[in-house]
Amino acid sequence: MEPVTYEPIGVVESPFETPEDVPRPGTEPVTASGTLVIDEAYEPGLAGLEGFSHVIVLSHLHAVSGVRLQVRPMGGDPVGIFATSGPPRPNPIGHSVVELDGISGTRLSVSNLDLIDGTPILDLKPYAPKGPPIEALEIGWMGDLSE
Amino acid sequence: MEPVTYEPIGVVESPFETPEDVPRPGTEPVTASGTLVIDEAYEPGLAGLEGFSHVIVLSHLHAVSGVRLQVRPMGGDPVGIFATSGPPRPNPIGHSVVELDGISGTRLSVSNLDLIDGTPILDLKPYAPKGPPIEALEIGWMGDLSE
Repeated sequence: MEPVTYEPIGVVESPFETPEDVPRPGTEPVTASGTLVIDEAYEPGLAGLEGFSHVIVLSHLHAVSGVRLQVRPMGGDPVGIFATSGPPRPNPIGHSVVELDGISGTRLSVSNLDLIDGTPILDLKPYAPKGPPIEALEIGWMGDLSE
Repeated sequence: MEPVTYEPIGVVESPFETPEDVPRPGTEPVTASGTLVIDEAYEPGLAGLEGFSHVIVLSHLHAVSGVRLQVRPMGGDPVGIFATSGPPRPNPIGHSVVELDGISGTRLSVSNLDLIDGTPILDLKPYAPKGPPIEALEIGWMGDLSE
């Protein structure tokens, strides 16, 4: 299949400078605040986003190098990379759910940020119910971890 | 910022041939079944995914042409494209939540499929609780539609 090329729509301003600075999921809550700086040309595309409490950020995890098809979450048994949200994926696209604190022009103030400074933003989508209620989900190895 | 290039990891087999064939969100439930055919080189990356009931599929919406920064969901008031999950986005990355019915080698049988046949797959991630409980979400214009 043909490669796919995207132009970033903006960039993340974050207190985290390297991937090691970001708290690991499951260890401590991610509470950092930062700013999503969207290119001014896209300002009309943000209309109505202010009504949502949370936003999905698709980003290019630019600081990740190398691909590992299996990883060991929390040092446990090996798990396929597609059964995790870990960074060293064939296409390092980050999927974050951040809390939207406010929008000023094309600057989005957010918290619960798990991205590092300078991360290119590929897309924003509203975070809204999709899929079944959480109680109805089966979550594989993640369920074992939380027991 | 530099453009970003990805190589698809697989392709969708779907009964839908064109975007017009896919039921619009909110009008009728998406119940179609299909197959995610992942490149064989990535088989180790799928280990453990079979334990999840639902999978996030990030895809390249290849049949979409053109960008509209504002759209009118259900013919209502204009809304910014980033406040919707609509296709004509600057970077047409699809975010689907599909039900995982089974895995055979590198073929994933799924239902609740909203992608058309031939859609390049960029990434798979397990669908697991992220963000606050659904009841705690504010969902802007989408809330008005469901009243």
